[in-house]
Amino acid sequence: MNSINLKEKLRHVKSHWHPHQITVVDDMQVILAKIKGEFVWHAHENEDELFHVLKGTLYMQFRDRTAVVQQGEIIVVPKGIEHCPSTKDGEEVHLLLFEKTNTAHTGNVQHELTKTEYPKI
Amino acid sequence: MNSINLKEKLRHVKSHWHPHQITVVDDMQVILAKIKGEFVWHAHENEDELFHVLKGTLYMQFRDRTAVVQQGEIIVVPKGIEHCPSTKDGEEVHLLLFEKTNTAHTGNVQHELTKTEYPKI
Repeated sequence: MNSINLKEKLRHVKSHWHPHQITVVDDMQVILAKIKGEFVWHAHENEDELFHVLKGTLYMQFRDRTAVVQQGEIIVVPKGIEHCPSTKDGEEVHLLLFEKTNTAHTGNVQHELTKTEYPKI
Repeated sequence: MNSINLKEKLRHVKSHWHPHQITVVDDMQVILAKIKGEFVWHAHENEDELFHVLKGTLYMQFRDRTAVVQQGEIIVVPKGIEHCPSTKDGEEVHLLLFEKTNTAHTGNVQHELTKTEYPKI
């Protein structure tokens, strides 16, 4: 029941595309991530996923279009929808995510960027 | 799958202590609220509740202490814990909340501030 300072917690995130868990709310986890470039196309069959942009601009690619999500904006990717988060022009983007604790990082896709452990910070 | 701009959505929230739902993530809802002054002592027996301060300073009172939650900070109130959100010096504070869609506004306490309907904005 202590306050969690997002900027302070972000200092502990030192690599791109590696989610770090800052707290849980019932069966959901709250995650911080720094991203840069393009991730991996994947879907989560049974879980929605919320992205809140804390810094920069997120380009959330879907198969038929790309959603531009700016600082101070949120997007929810519904379960089953293929998506690929990305950034442009070498920008590092900071994200706060909200998803079930059992959500697999890249769904059923295995990739060298796939993480199975999220450090708790 | 569109981006949700928090500042734009906050313009639709015109009264204090009245949560407005901006989206859902699985069985959780994402809420915006503007608060000022002191709320109602209550607990949610079966649901955790996350408060993310977007503007101002939240004073989250517990029975044994008060947590100060500043802009850019988060606090999670665990299920079953009595709490009373408040602000100081007449400041209006803007909050983003995450909680189960079936979480009762003031738990099992009935009060004139209790809302049973959260507008969808």
